[in-house]
Amino acid sequence: MARAAASAEIERLIQLLARLPGLGPRSARRAALHLVKKKEQLLAPLAAALTEAHDRIVTCETCGNIDTVSPCTLCRDQSRDRTLICVVEEVGDLWALERAHVLNGLYHVLGGTLSPLDGVGPEDLSIAKLIERAGAPEVKEVLLALNATVEGQSTAHYLTDQLVGCNVAISRLAHGVPIGGELDYLDEGTLVAAVKARKTM
Amino acid sequence: MARAAASAEIERLIQLLARLPGLGPRSARRAALHLVKKKEQLLAPLAAALTEAHDRIVTCETCGNIDTVSPCTLCRDQSRDRTLICVVEEVGDLWALERAHVLNGLYHVLGGTLSPLDGVGPEDLSIAKLIERAGAPEVKEVLLALNATVEGQSTAHYLTDQLVGCNVAISRLAHGVPIGGELDYLDEGTLVAAVKARKTM
Repeated sequence: MARAAASAEIERLIQLLARLPGLGPRSARRAALHLVKKKEQLLAPLAAALTEAHDRIVTCETCGNIDTVSPCTLCRDQSRDRTLICVVEEVGDLWALERAHVLNGLYHVLGGTLSPLDGVGPEDLSIAKLIERAGAPEVKEVLLALNATVEGQSTAHYLTDQLVGCNVAISRLAHGVPIGGELDYLDEGTLVAAVKARKTM
Repeated sequence: MARAAASAEIERLIQLLARLPGLGPRSARRAALHLVKKKEQLLAPLAAALTEAHDRIVTCETCGNIDTVSPCTLCRDQSRDRTLICVVEEVGDLWALERAHVLNGLYHVLGGTLSPLDGVGPEDLSIAKLIERAGAPEVKEVLLALNATVEGQSTAHYLTDQLVGCNVAISRLAHGVPIGGELDYLDEGTLVAAVKARKTM
């Protein structure tokens, strides 16, 4: 006996929503119901926004950011510091750094980390393009802003080796106690890094 | 300085996704990125499914279920037991009962619970329609399958009073220990209900 209560259209919607990160089957069902209940206020605008995003969003051929233009707004912005390329794993990391208003350079999105076990090698990431960009005469520094995970750090080491030929300084983010962090809740690796990199007051 | 990294189209998509139950601003951003990364596999089908749902889904004028037809598939199904009307708060509750394959009667979706503090009175729920349906000669029983919350139970009491005039048996769901439930984790109210309604082995 099939689940007769929800029509095929709704079941399809639930299945697609359940594929979003953060939504399981149960919350996808709640979300679908919420959408159908708010047809004009939420469902219609969301359908329109998705169609718009599908038609207009492209990946920047230079840095890998997503935007409606390629090269993206950041790459086109002549007020940005073209001597610095900040390398990140994913577009979400680029957004996080932009929200922090801490960098005014350019970015380069790798599209992931090296992971031999999952079959992700250098050719699967945007590494050749990075080497090419880092070789441009105006570039002075490449900041490897990769996650402080095993995969992120081993990818950073690989990139450091690859970038030796380019005439650039290679840097990484500092490790230490996060702002607002309580020592009691931090892992030992962070504490070790924070102590080793201690600063004179 | 505006957040320059995400384009206006993406920001709009994030804002709409964040209005879904279960998605906060951060997970909405992750979901939007995931959608843009899986443009053809996920974004396009989801946009199509939403448009389809918008165009085709209607609320059943009889029971309040949602479907592509009104009266809905359940109300039209002549194999269902027309002597029983099961009253639920929301469409999600109807789906939950249908998944359990425990009832073969008809349903009636109230659209919420009475909540004087929030300004929800009897006229805001589908109560007049329920009284009308319960008055039909073939109906023998109205099962009030409302949530075991204060609002659900006070609404059930109100409905019981209203249904007295109709010639129907009025029932409610049993309270007790949920299947698989461990006594140590249950609240006192449930334990009291389970003991009071104890059954002889």
